[in-house]
Amino acid sequence: MKLRLLVTGGTFDKEYDELTGRLFFKDTHVREMLKLGRADLDLEIRTLMMIDSLEMRDLDRELVLKSCLEPGCERVVVTHGTDTMPETARYLADRATGRTIVLTGAMVPYTFGSSDGLFNLGGALAFAQVLPHGVYVAMNGRCFDGRSVRKNRGTGRFEAVS
Amino acid sequence: MKLRLLVTGGTFDKEYDELTGRLFFKDTHVREMLKLGRADLDLEIRTLMMIDSLEMRDLDRELVLKSCLEPGCERVVVTHGTDTMPETARYLADRATGRTIVLTGAMVPYTFGSSDGLFNLGGALAFAQVLPHGVYVAMNGRCFDGRSVRKNRGTGRFEAVS
Amino acid sequence: MKLRLLVTGGTFDKEYDELTGRLFFKDTHVREMLKLGRADLDLEIRTLMMIDSLEMRDLDRELVLKSCLEPGCERVVVTHGTDTMPETARYLADRATGRTIVLTGAMVPYTFGSSDGLFNLGGALAFAQVLPHGVYVAMNGRCFDGRSVRKNRGTGRFEAVS
Amino acid sequence: MKLRLLVTGGTFDKEYDELTGRLFFKDTHVREMLKLGRADLDLEIRTLMMIDSLEMRDLDRELVLKSCLEPGCERVVVTHGTDTMPETARYLADRATGRTIVLTGAMVPYTFGSSDGLFNLGGALAFAQVLPHGVYVAMNGRCFDGRSVRKNRGTGRFEAVS
Repeated sequence: MKLRLLVTGGTFDKEYDELTGRLFFKDTHVREMLKLGRADLDLEIRTLMMIDSLEMRDLDRELVLKSCLEPGCERVVVTHGTDTMPETARYLADRATGRTIVLTGAMVPYTFGSSDGLFNLGGALAFAQVLPHGVYVAMNGRCFDGRSVRKNRGTGRFEAVS
Repeated sequence: MKLRLLVTGGTFDKEYDELTGRLFFKDTHVREMLKLGRADLDLEIRTLMMIDSLEMRDLDRELVLKSCLEPGCERVVVTHGTDTMPETARYLADRATGRTIVLTGAMVPYTFGSSDGLFNLGGALAFAQVLPHGVYVAMNGRCFDGRSVRKNRGTGRFEAVS
Repeated sequence: MKLRLLVTGGTFDKEYDELTGRLFFKDTHVREMLKLGRADLDLEIRTLMMIDSLEMRDLDRELVLKSCLEPGCERVVVTHGTDTMPETARYLADRATGRTIVLTGAMVPYTFGSSDGLFNLGGALAFAQVLPHGVYVAMNGRCFDGRSVRKNRGTGRFEAVS
Repeated sequence: MKLRLLVTGGTFDKEYDELTGRLFFKDTHVREMLKLGRADLDLEIRTLMMIDSLEMRDLDRELVLKSCLEPGCERVVVTHGTDTMPETARYLADRATGRTIVLTGAMVPYTFGSSDGLFNLGGALAFAQVLPHGVYVAMNGRCFDGRSVRKNRGTGRFEAVS
């Protein structure tokens, strides 16, 4: 089964700049993560942008949407910063049809030892293979409807909005 | 959604004994892995045994089966050594009904830096939540029918048997 | 041989706050690091402060000095942020006598996979055991005279000042 | 200051073969470790052999000795398996003059998360830079006289023999 993996940045892909003590983006780590996971999937990987999701604008979301809708692949995973992941999920849910789109990310950068990224990526790729068309957020081992999910900023957990 | 997580050992949970240079079992690492994954699932975790899957006998498989079938939970993930994972999957597939059972494991122990365990666990928990009743093997980012999967010992990859 | 280990914070001990995306201090990791190093030393460990070395004032340096000079132990390792490590080294070199004092730190927090902290700590403890009285900076596998060392902010390396 | 780094294998450099579940040797990790430590030393690195120290014969020790004595560098670090490190240290102590030779190793392979290797390497390089001519074993943060040290197989710690 073919999957498309769209990279937009987010904490997932942040690195520590040892000269400035700041976090920054260089390249995505998804290939390295897939290798670590011994993933044997037919994946089409594309880096759309490398940004903090707080900087994600509707213009960026439009690019994500267009990349999801491009022909050739019905099942898409989007790596995304957690802060505005629910907003992007809703944006896509309102506009995308004929696709299974799963957004995922991480609370801690992959390059730091304690990252949830590999767990989340494993889950997102699984959900994307078997869920019916729709937009979803895969975090905390769970899968949320992209239209009704929020990030609880106090706990860092994602929750269903009823 | 409630999930049952049955631990049987396997490479997943092996540790390095620095006094003897051998691998051995102590406790399972699944709780630690779930914490790392910030998993927010209603999980019932039970350690059935801590063995190398080459030592898995039908008596052990019977215990796995019985634990899968115990009332209270329809969706089960079983951590298992990779060497005989296909055999156990077939054993369960021939006997279990009314359950979604997903077997998973790792090629490299979780405590070693380069483990695929966290990726596999993320995938297995996802597949277990959404797949219809049946027995599956979740490895390499993929999900195989438990009746027709084998481990290719040359590559370490799992493959569908046609 | 008895050694005193004074903790002042620095990048060494920073952690990533997954809720805010900022680095912060909680507890020191030196005990964990010593355990990882299977260190079998007679160590007296004291946390004096947990601060970024850019915030280190002469009042703080005075406390470090007093703690170095307290009776009971001639050999001292001080963990310190790298930015003002040379300033503190000079401050101590101008005031301390009868002690071997070795400052060390890290460019990357210990909790991030890619830290130089364990290597530096191993070196600092070694230098502190064998060098004659004086103040030293142990970074990059080297040992610098505390009166003539600077951090090259462009490369992140420490250099001898002639 | 110039240092020679002689690699002989040992647990330090062992890797996990995910196909067989056995430990094996591929390449040494010392360069990677030195990079992680941001080591800025004038090092001449040579891999003499890649063996378990239980397989170390006097013929091998002769090669280590000859490599230590080659002109061009007075200060040498030898990475070595821990099991027969004391034997090799004594062998060298009986034969080498005009050199500072420090043997070090690890209880856990570097590629496993919990290795003491980086700590030990940092210490060994420090001791090698400042100790007078002689043969030493640097383990557990300590430095032992190469003529009177043993590994306690019960605890995995090195001890001075009186």
